[in-house]
Amino acid sequence: MAIRTIAPGPRMSQAVIHNGTVYLAGQVAEDASADTAGQTRQILERIDALLEEAGTDRSRLLSATIWLSDMGGFKEMNRVWDAWVASGHTPARACVEARLARSDLRVEIMVVAALPES
Amino acid sequence: MAIRTIAPGPRMSQAVIHNGTVYLAGQVAEDASADTAGQTRQILERIDALLEEAGTDRSRLLSATIWLSDMGGFKEMNRVWDAWVASGHTPARACVEARLARSDLRVEIMVVAALPES
Amino acid sequence: MAIRTIAPGPRMSQAVIHNGTVYLAGQVAEDASADTAGQTRQILERIDALLEEAGTDRSRLLSATIWLSDMGGFKEMNRVWDAWVASGHTPARACVEARLARSDLRVEIMVVAALPES
Repeated sequence: MAIRTIAPGPRMSQAVIHNGTVYLAGQVAEDASADTAGQTRQILERIDALLEEAGTDRSRLLSATIWLSDMGGFKEMNRVWDAWVASGHTPARACVEARLARSDLRVEIMVVAALPES
Repeated sequence: MAIRTIAPGPRMSQAVIHNGTVYLAGQVAEDASADTAGQTRQILERIDALLEEAGTDRSRLLSATIWLSDMGGFKEMNRVWDAWVASGHTPARACVEARLARSDLRVEIMVVAALPES
Repeated sequence: MAIRTIAPGPRMSQAVIHNGTVYLAGQVAEDASADTAGQTRQILERIDALLEEAGTDRSRLLSATIWLSDMGGFKEMNRVWDAWVASGHTPARACVEARLARSDLRVEIMVVAALPES
């Protein structure tokens, strides 16, 4: 039941692992000049990288919360999301609209995943 | 530590079970012409059904996140919620306002629950 | 895999413990006349007290969701947050804007923590 952190900063860690479960920080795009699809792609790449560092992958997602700064981007985000998730292993999910920390951010995604069976 | 999914779709699963914990997708009303109370009732019925399919019930809820499209519906939602939860076994909960995926949706609820002790 | 609740009310429990994981309810300020920094301080004191009652502390936080009624309070909230978290043991975190249950509430924070190794 030890806790392992990935990229622990002074404000948050990018991931925290406990009891076989991986909690990722809400991810946003590094290049926020991209449109909703582009920001979503950047976010999912970051999630892939963090899951790999934690020792797992997108086929073991448990749940996801998605915030869109404008629900008008729902279809655009979903096109990228639907192509990314592992068929038959999709997480529980909620998606709502919310203003994000910076006005140029269009998407933020926070996921919980499982470590592989050991 | 295997993962079990319930109703896994191309975008999300309705529930994902791992390590004794059940993660449900954010549930919304099927008939969105209903008012806030009616939508809440539909949602809680869906949650009951999904928890049953997962092998647990509302007396084992751990946490709940509730989004209302208009915080003006807070009392109306709570009347239905308070009558539904299992006395003495209420979950941790947060409720905030957020625009939802469709403009006719007034409520979305995402819960985490525990499987029974085995 | 038993469930333990802390301060179970008719609507929610202030904390629910299961399988070594502690789920806290979204905490808000008791004195909502305070500014964003003051409300954040009150909230973090409540979280400290609940974590202690659960048998753990802020150095074992796993994740946190923060809602601000106005993203303009982001820096003010973060100043208090950054001083509070345990260095090297910061949780995964997301922070978005949302209208809260009462118009005088400026911050709500919901955390998940781990019990100590036994």
